[in-house]
Amino acid sequence: MRTLTWDQEKQELRMIDQRQLPARLEIISCRSYQDVAEAIQNMTIRGAPAIGVAAAFGVVLAACKSKKTNLQDLQEEIQQAATIIISSRPTAVNLSWAVQRIMKIARQPFVMKQDLINSLVTEAQKMANEDIDTNKRIAEHGAGLIQDGDTIIHHCNTGALATVDWGTALGVIRLAHLQGKHLHVLVDETRPRFQGSRLTAWELEQYGISYEIICDNAAGYFLHTRQAQKVFFGADRVAANGDVANKVGSYMLALAAHANNIPVYSVFPTSTVDLNLENGDLIPIEERDSNEVLDIKAHDQPVAPIGAKARNPAFDITPNYLITGLVTEKGLVSPPFQQNLSRVIHE
Amino acid sequence: MRTLTWDQEKQELRMIDQRQLPARLEIISCRSYQDVAEAIQNMTIRGAPAIGVAAAFGVVLAACKSKKTNLQDLQEEIQQAATIIISSRPTAVNLSWAVQRIMKIARQPFVMKQDLINSLVTEAQKMANEDIDTNKRIAEHGAGLIQDGDTIIHHCNTGALATVDWGTALGVIRLAHLQGKHLHVLVDETRPRFQGSRLTAWELEQYGISYEIICDNAAGYFLHTRQAQKVFFGADRVAANGDVANKVGSYMLALAAHANNIPVYSVFPTSTVDLNLENGDLIPIEERDSNEVLDIKAHDQPVAPIGAKARNPAFDITPNYLITGLVTEKGLVSPPFQQNLSRVIHE
Repeated sequence: MRTLTWDQEKQELRMIDQRQLPARLEIISCRSYQDVAEAIQNMTIRGAPAIGVAAAFGVVLAACKSKKTNLQDLQEEIQQAATIIISSRPTAVNLSWAVQRIMKIARQPFVMKQDLINSLVTEAQKMANEDIDTNKRIAEHGAGLIQDGDTIIHHCNTGALATVDWGTALGVIRLAHLQGKHLHVLVDETRPRFQGSRLTAWELEQYGISYEIICDNAAGYFLHTRQAQKVFFGADRVAANGDVANKVGSYMLALAAHANNIPVYSVFPTSTVDLNLENGDLIPIEERDSNEVLDIKAHDQPVAPIGAKARNPAFDITPNYLITGLVTEKGLVSPPFQQNLSRVIHE
Repeated sequence: MRTLTWDQEKQELRMIDQRQLPARLEIISCRSYQDVAEAIQNMTIRGAPAIGVAAAFGVVLAACKSKKTNLQDLQEEIQQAATIIISSRPTAVNLSWAVQRIMKIARQPFVMKQDLINSLVTEAQKMANEDIDTNKRIAEHGAGLIQDGDTIIHHCNTGALATVDWGTALGVIRLAHLQGKHLHVLVDETRPRFQGSRLTAWELEQYGISYEIICDNAAGYFLHTRQAQKVFFGADRVAANGDVANKVGSYMLALAAHANNIPVYSVFPTSTVDLNLENGDLIPIEERDSNEVLDIKAHDQPVAPIGAKARNPAFDITPNYLITGLVTEKGLVSPPFQQNLSRVIHE
């Protein structure tokens, strides 16, 4: 089952409503490019590769549903729709990559409106199929990085749901599992929208891969105590220097892995690379509605599959080299703490 | 209003039920040492200094409610109660510090049972009052670290609710605010129990201090983009070398601050220091029920005060130096990414 499918007869794009998982597997239909832009914006569909292909079908829908008969008018209308679709989310570059790719078709000279539409459908279908092929090639390149017995910390969702099918980082893990390697995944829940505990855990259940859910802030504990050997996540945009924009929290996770000499892999199709941007600080960061953070009641459903397991360390250790000062009732204690703390206590 | 108060007439310990905040300010009564141990275990009361003083009153209750008339039998029963109270939570050393302190009184020779009880009550009350004095001294030592205009990232709750009154790290921030400094606090929500968004935000509302709630995993974004100038948190146990055990997530927060040359302060009374432990890796880390992570429905109330604001960046940037490899459909790209990524893309 694909995350999104095109129904040629009804001229609609069907997609899994990822907001309803893991409670319900519901399919919604987009019948206009506005529907697609809204589904991307409200995260009915998410994941850089998936929203890229969805956006391409959004352009298809703009053409199909247009009342324009004059080819030039139609192409102008498609161009306006493309601009709106691209603006639905700013960070993932796959969105504009996909729209630009299909707009190359849309701008070609056509005689008949139906020819233009047919060409757009063909191109969008090709992009959907290519996405799956690309993901499988990614998995072949990445699976060798995973050793038998590894525990992997994974952030957000990068599985079949984040793509047309198969997945990127989770696709690598999936292939390593199919190769017979014994794996365990510590699934970052991924606040505020719980894509880890809702979507990744749900996928891992389907694949029969062992996992436990952790709060994002607990990854440091598991890395420092050598309970994880690898970190994997996806990417929403990669700058020319290899800086990776990805779901919030990836940076802190990578810092914690790096501090403990644990390898970090970011997994993505090359359509995610933006060679126009020299470094990551130039990548626009979307800031979303604060209610995603504040309104926990909006999650009126379980945030994890039934029967999911979790790890819940209540504390962690901050090594002294990270601390500037210890403030006590006897004064501010500065490094070196080994000497100064004992002196202050015994004063 | 104190987080916990002793009612001498009714011989009960009253405490704010911190599980109900910010929806309801409810007071519960502990009438036995078992009630106190349970309130500590289920986090009706939490915060290292607060659970220390609560534990001392637990010992008081063990004495008050004992049916033993023989002094030696009574003292044995109190000792058993003390052991149970200490075992209610393992990480914060204040708990055993406080119980050991009051047990010094309990073990003294007494003639009358009532004399023993009176001495215990006096000692526990003294500890409660000392906690407030200590916190105010801590604040005086710490407030100078905060500059006018600072934005501070704060983890968990370290305010009046984490102590008998006033608070540790949040007490420092509170005093700096009273000194007229303009501050803003980015409040880590502190998964899984939301002590930041539920308790710290609620306290900041009372004090009139400007704040916004963030997901724990977003702190790195705000530090990297220079939207915060200081990091403050408390401590549950500090080893002799200055390693700090604190609420899970403190480590990743400190890593992110350190990577961006932003100072990190851990604030605590010296009763939190355990000079018997050479370093933090020797500190026992409590692992709590996984339902705290999985069962979001258990939060059948708002996780933030009404009208609370939040920041919600959806992505962050992982700098290339933290990344071991980029996995694409064209192969594994290794550092230096600046050259290798461009080469792979153009192949």
